[in-house]
Amino acid sequence: MPRKTITGYSNPTVKFVRSLRDKKHRKREQRFLAEGLRLLTDAREGGRLPELLLMAERREGHPLLDELEQAVDAAGGEVIELPLDLLSKVTGKENPQAVAGVFAEWDTGLAQIDRAAAPIWLVAQSLRDPGNLGTMLRTADAVGAGGVILLDDCVDPFSVEAVRASMGAIFTQSLAQARWDEFIDWLRQGPGQLVAASLRDARPYRGAPYAAPCFIMVGNESRGLPEVYEMACDLRVTMPMKGRADSLNAAVAAAVLAYEVLATLGD
Amino acid sequence: MPRKTITGYSNPTVKFVRSLRDKKHRKREQRFLAEGLRLLTDAREGGRLPELLLMAERREGHPLLDELEQAVDAAGGEVIELPLDLLSKVTGKENPQAVAGVFAEWDTGLAQIDRAAAPIWLVAQSLRDPGNLGTMLRTADAVGAGGVILLDDCVDPFSVEAVRASMGAIFTQSLAQARWDEFIDWLRQGPGQLVAASLRDARPYRGAPYAAPCFIMVGNESRGLPEVYEMACDLRVTMPMKGRADSLNAAVAAAVLAYEVLATLGD
Repeated sequence: MPRKTITGYSNPTVKFVRSLRDKKHRKREQRFLAEGLRLLTDAREGGRLPELLLMAERREGHPLLDELEQAVDAAGGEVIELPLDLLSKVTGKENPQAVAGVFAEWDTGLAQIDRAAAPIWLVAQSLRDPGNLGTMLRTADAVGAGGVILLDDCVDPFSVEAVRASMGAIFTQSLAQARWDEFIDWLRQGPGQLVAASLRDARPYRGAPYAAPCFIMVGNESRGLPEVYEMACDLRVTMPMKGRADSLNAAVAAAVLAYEVLATLGD
Repeated sequence: MPRKTITGYSNPTVKFVRSLRDKKHRKREQRFLAEGLRLLTDAREGGRLPELLLMAERREGHPLLDELEQAVDAAGGEVIELPLDLLSKVTGKENPQAVAGVFAEWDTGLAQIDRAAAPIWLVAQSLRDPGNLGTMLRTADAVGAGGVILLDDCVDPFSVEAVRASMGAIFTQSLAQARWDEFIDWLRQGPGQLVAASLRDARPYRGAPYAAPCFIMVGNESRGLPEVYEMACDLRVTMPMKGRADSLNAAVAAAVLAYEVLATLGD
């Protein structure tokens, strides 16, 4: 099929896509940007297609790229070709991938979470670093978690950096955003063990009595979890800290705990 | 003591410190920049003082800041005061800390590594992301590792981002940079078990026969470890991957393995 081609930086579509790197514009448009054939293939296989597919001119052919293009066509999406250096300016990456897509954001209410669907869930409270959030999504996928619940003022999961760091897991994991009060009310309406790494009245993380569905909560990178959140947990655990530091990187703490829970609950 | 004060962006000292955000300049000057009272206190307590201490005017007083200032004075270092917004421009951070320091880089030869000094060592091969390297340093500190060995073309451990993500661990962990051939020769001249996460001929990471000193190696974020490096390992292990992805974030993989090794070798 002949494709619409864009060559200029001032093209309105280019401007629109570029604007999605900014949170304010994402919120207004309810759209976000993802790049790379692998990510877009994960999205397609997870049931999500871009409304707008951007493909570099003179790209190398790939069967997965053909499938993606056909799927977007079949779904009535738009496909545009543009020079690679222009695509690079759109995605803001020095070594751009040959393909990027604009997706509709989806509903991220707690109602989207089916707690019985998985033994492990990650909960991030006021996480600020998009790389940490993306890494948590990637870890959640690896341990077979159901998804990530974002409490209070978390970084936008649809930011380019978070999507990139998730390595496609954003398309396979459930995602919910909620305030603490809303979350704890919802949690207590069904089975669910809330666990956090804590220095308060905690037991060693190895051999602790984890139970499914297990909700592993980590806090803000600088401040950690509020005390009241920690005290609302069913289980508080500590990891050994043998050096000067009294905490791990948030995404690392979530991963060490999640793999311990996975080993306890049985692979 | 009356302090030299800087008010202008074009001041040569400001230009010099700013230039240290660039790797080329760091290599030429053999100096790097670290910021924040906590980091600089970790450095001082680890035996490293800045040659040049930059302090914001009208900062809040703090006993640790006084100790730092006195220690730099006593060691013959330079102390300069400048407006907070200028310090912000120097460090390139929107919410600048009230203090920053310029440190001499130190020797990072393999000869600096005393393998008997710790049961765990981390090894990073061609790691590209400074946040990942800083996070590995922080994890190394937490598990009581001796340090981090950087193989091949790793990101600069003295970059502002790596220093920041290390949360001070860069001042407490040994750091060595080496090519693979040099490293494996050195490793085989003494006790040392080389371990990597691998999909090749590997056993489950839980319950594997880890032995001290254990060198936990992770590879480049995109390419992983070269096959020849994996095959040179004494032990190849796998972590469960229950989702779509076949790998974890490099810093996460290092941490999950390191905590498993720590549990095996005994806290």
